[in-house]
Amino acid sequence: MMIGALISSGASRAAPPALSMGEILKSSPPEAWKLIDPASTLYLDLPRGRIIVELAPSFAPHHVENIKRLVRAGFFDGLAVVRVQDNYVVQWGDADAVKPLGGAQKRLQPEFDRTETGKGLFTALPDPDAYARQVGFTDGFPVARDLKISKSWLAHCYAMVGVGRDVGADSGNGTELYAVIGHAPRHLDRNVTLVGRVVRGIELLSSLPRGTGDLGFYKTAGERTPITRVRLAADLPPGEQLSLEALRTDTATFVALLQNRRFRSDDWYKTAAGRIDLCNMPLPVRDRLQ
Amino acid sequence: MMIGALISSGASRAAPPALSMGEILKSSPPEAWKLIDPASTLYLDLPRGRIIVELAPSFAPHHVENIKRLVRAGFFDGLAVVRVQDNYVVQWGDADAVKPLGGAQKRLQPEFDRTETGKGLFTALPDPDAYARQVGFTDGFPVARDLKISKSWLAHCYAMVGVGRDVGADSGNGTELYAVIGHAPRHLDRNVTLVGRVVRGIELLSSLPRGTGDLGFYKTAGERTPITRVRLAADLPPGEQLSLEALRTDTATFVALLQNRRFRSDDWYKTAAGRIDLCNMPLPVRDRLQ
Repeated sequence: MMIGALISSGASRAAPPALSMGEILKSSPPEAWKLIDPASTLYLDLPRGRIIVELAPSFAPHHVENIKRLVRAGFFDGLAVVRVQDNYVVQWGDADAVKPLGGAQKRLQPEFDRTETGKGLFTALPDPDAYARQVGFTDGFPVARDLKISKSWLAHCYAMVGVGRDVGADSGNGTELYAVIGHAPRHLDRNVTLVGRVVRGIELLSSLPRGTGDLGFYKTAGERTPITRVRLAADLPPGEQLSLEALRTDTATFVALLQNRRFRSDDWYKTAAGRIDLCNMPLPVRDRLQ
Repeated sequence: MMIGALISSGASRAAPPALSMGEILKSSPPEAWKLIDPASTLYLDLPRGRIIVELAPSFAPHHVENIKRLVRAGFFDGLAVVRVQDNYVVQWGDADAVKPLGGAQKRLQPEFDRTETGKGLFTALPDPDAYARQVGFTDGFPVARDLKISKSWLAHCYAMVGVGRDVGADSGNGTELYAVIGHAPRHLDRNVTLVGRVVRGIELLSSLPRGTGDLGFYKTAGERTPITRVRLAADLPPGEQLSLEALRTDTATFVALLQNRRFRSDDWYKTAAGRIDLCNMPLPVRDRLQ
């Protein structure tokens, strides 16, 4: 949804609604939520619990397809979390590049950004951004865009998931993935293909012991956290699939929430910022209502 | 140092120096570094290791003084880390407010900001900020300011340390402290008194298990991490004091580093942002050269 539709140019001076964040969500209509597609949902199972990733095929179709092939070939099962760099990323997969790819591509053209006509659903943030001309939300993801070059791209916010690569722009293939666990490293935007975000369990990754080697890699295999298995939700029996809903970012509910987060109005806050950084905006996910 | 002195208005279009970050630091003159004052340095010792905090008496003199009194009375010894909220804060101290204060004040007027004449040392960032009219660095700390209201304040970047408080603006006294362990919660700026930053060991806090209670508080005392002791570096025998130096932020070395981080120029980067967020700028600390 365009900026004019829901957030007027005067929004930064508007008084906040009196409702709390919880009240806004509780009073949201069912159509403000979308089912997260099980065919685009990964379950990453570690001994300490499950991490759930919502993939973003509309931004990185070829990388998402490749990752699905890897997952369906059981590629990640028995691999490990190999890197935890404080205030930066957790990385998992085949650090040694020895495992067969099970029919997935070895090299892929980068999907660092996509063509942006300005006509798609986009809820723009009215506040400045350090890195991009415009930022906001598309399909539940934090997005930056530049209409002068007709491009948009996913932004490296906390819990976003990307495809590790070497120096070659086409050297990433999804066999090594990472999640952001620190202050948004937005300088990675347009340098890495982002493929989704962790919607549950990021704390299982962010609380892992930091690696003591260069760039936070673990020095020894014994320090790594093994991956029990990775599955596409859609490939599991229905009884093993969680039904999750994400708040649609093109709704009045989301805009009310955005205004609520820009203008904190409870008794504790003495100075409401009246602004928000792209990566400070919560993107709520809930169990599907029965 | 004012913006004009070191970063020209054309800086955002300037080509980066060819040196790497490591080379810039290695070639820095000794006077680009300052000794971190042992009288403003806290050692927070946990069973897993030591966290070192540089206090900021120039921004929060009364809170820093109160914290020093608490430390000198042994207030924190035997207390615990009571809260770890993912992508937000780690908090430690006397959550139950039962320990005697040892001569420290129970209530303090907030030091959310300070008067800013615009004449002090300040290295401004030329890039936009979501929250403040101007941001940059003073005395080695990330700072926001607004000359229209003649105020500046410390910014809630990763590893910054603040004083927990209740609803009353004067209810914080340093008996509960927190460190930021996620994407900068800048909406807390000017709502909490910040007193310093973790210069060593933040990973010992950020990798703690997350609390499962409301706001990340641990539900049971058994989950808490005990604090062995907290000391002022200056109060320890010389042989037990670490000599740390911080890169001065009013130097040509720091500006070179800032430009280097704004324009990533190694082979890996395909698109240099040419910009940086306040909280993405490294603030280097090293062991004092012998």
